[in-house]
Parts: sequence; C-alpha cells; structure tokens
Amino acid sequence: MDFPTPSPDKKELEEGGLFTPHFGQNGLLTAVVTDARDGMLLMVAHMNAAALSLTLETGIAHYWSRSRGRLWKKGEVSGNFQRVVEIRTDCDQDALWLRVEVAGHDATCHTGRRSCFYRTVEVKGGKAHLKVDGSVPKFDTKATYGRSG
Amino acid sequence: MDFPTPSPDKKELEEGGLFTPHFGQNGLLTAVVTDARDGMLLMVAHMNAAALSLTLETGIAHYWSRSRGRLWKKGEVSGNFQRVVEIRTDCDQDALWLRVEVAGHDATCHTGRRSCFYRTVEVKGGKAHLKVDGSVPKFDTKATYGRSG
Repeated sequence: MDFPTPSPDKKELEEGGLFTPHFGQNGLLTAVVTDARDGMLLMVAHMNAAALSLTLETGIAHYWSRSRGRLWKKGEVSGNFQRVVEIRTDCDQDALWLRVEVAGHDATCHTGRRSCFYRTVEVKGGKAHLKVDGSVPKFDTKATYGRSG
Repeated sequence: MDFPTPSPDKKELEEGGLFTPHFGQNGLLTAVVTDARDGMLLMVAHMNAAALSLTLETGIAHYWSRSRGRLWKKGEVSGNFQRVVEIRTDCDQDALWLRVEVAGHDATCHTGRRSCFYRTVEVKGGKAHLKVDGSVPKFDTKATYGRSG
C-alpha cells in the first residue's frame, strides 16, 4: 500500500478524507496502542510505511523496532498478537491510535505485564519517583524469550 | 526539578523506583494524553525536561511545541488547560501517559474538537482514506486564535 505525500494545504490535511501519514525524518510515526476492551494504554510504538501497510492489509499490528532495527510483527515470539479493531489518526496525521484486541496471554509488555505503563510517577518532597501499580507478569518471559527481558 | 541519568542496568530501569526519564536525541519524550473521565485519547505531544518539570511542579500540563520551538503551557490562549490526575511511564521510561481533566471548552485539538483523533482510517479497495467521526469544534477557533487553525 502506498501513501500519498502530505498536502502543504493545512485545511486538506486536517479536514480532508485523504490519508497522508506524515512519517518524520527517521521515516517513523508514533503509534499509541490501547485495549479496545477498556481503553487501557498498552504501549507506545513506532511504524514506518511498511509496518503501517502490513497492519492495514492484515489487520494485525506491525511496528518498526527501533532497538532491533527491523520490522516487527508484535507477538511473533510470545503469541501476544494484536488484532486491530480501529485505527485513527490525529489532526496533522503524524500519529496513529490503534485500538486492539490482544491475543495469547493478554499481555503486551516484554516484562510480561498487560501494559507497559505499570508505574505511576509520584512527587514527594520535590522529587519524583516511581511506584509499581501492582501488575505482575502474565507469562514466563524467560521461557518465552530465552532470557530475561 | 532535576532528573537523574537513566541507568545502564535494564532491571533497574524497568523494575526500580527511580524516575529517570529517557529524553531522546532531540531532548524530547513522547507524552500520550487521555481524558481521566473516560479514557478518550486526546492528543500526543512532546516534553523536554523543563516541560516535564513544570508539569510535575504545577499539576498543569506543559509541553514542548516542536512547531513553535518553545515551551507551551497547553491552554494558555484557549483556556483549555489540562489538570493532571495521574502520570505514568513505560518500561523503558521513554514515554509518559498523562491522565488529565480538561478545563475551559472541554476541547484539546486546535481545530476546536474535543480530541485530535477525530478521524478513523478506513480501507476500501486496497486504499486507505479518512472518515471524520462526527465530532465538531466546541469553540470558535478563529476568534480564539486570531485566525483559522
């Protein structure tokens, strides 16, 4: 699937029906992924044109893994695939919102937890620290990935 | 507020209580902003250390505006401030999730709509196009910003 070049016309970009995703200088756009069931934020990832194209064509979320420098079918090792229920884009078309159903262990984070956002930021005495929200791994990450993490 | 340098120890980064936000090469991290009321995704923005510090100190969301190249107190013109209910970070601490209450017109998008994500991506005949979800401006953007957009 090819994506047209974004229009220089702001009105066309913001109000038009043409999907012209704006990939940044690194060829990536940001994808926000929430659970279609209850809206829980599961992860923030990145897509290049190939990942977005595969996602639209197959209905299964694909990303660009920046750490591994390769196309990444989410769940390819763990079985925790994401079936796309809906995709939205924002006003300037440089971010996507995927509402998904998670297969397998109902887990998205590589730590085994349901969501990557398992820690709240708390401020106390002028300093910020983190507090785990109580969520624990839903599968054996060592057995699945071959090593911790 | 100063933020310590991220630890090279993955376990400390992912399981520890130390908040060490990882700002990218451009000095920014991604902030996902949802409505604390119902989980609606309102916007995706960016923060540098100063914006994050101000947000934590005041409880009102501040960002770094990439288009304007300056610190941005969201709502400074429109009155649509965001009161932070909760902040979370993800496993590798390079993204934040802000759950907020929106003041003013209950609108976040500069087009006047409640959310920036007012269009769904639809695939038909192998091509993707956009469909507005029916949401309309909640305030007069021309009168507020001095010009359209």
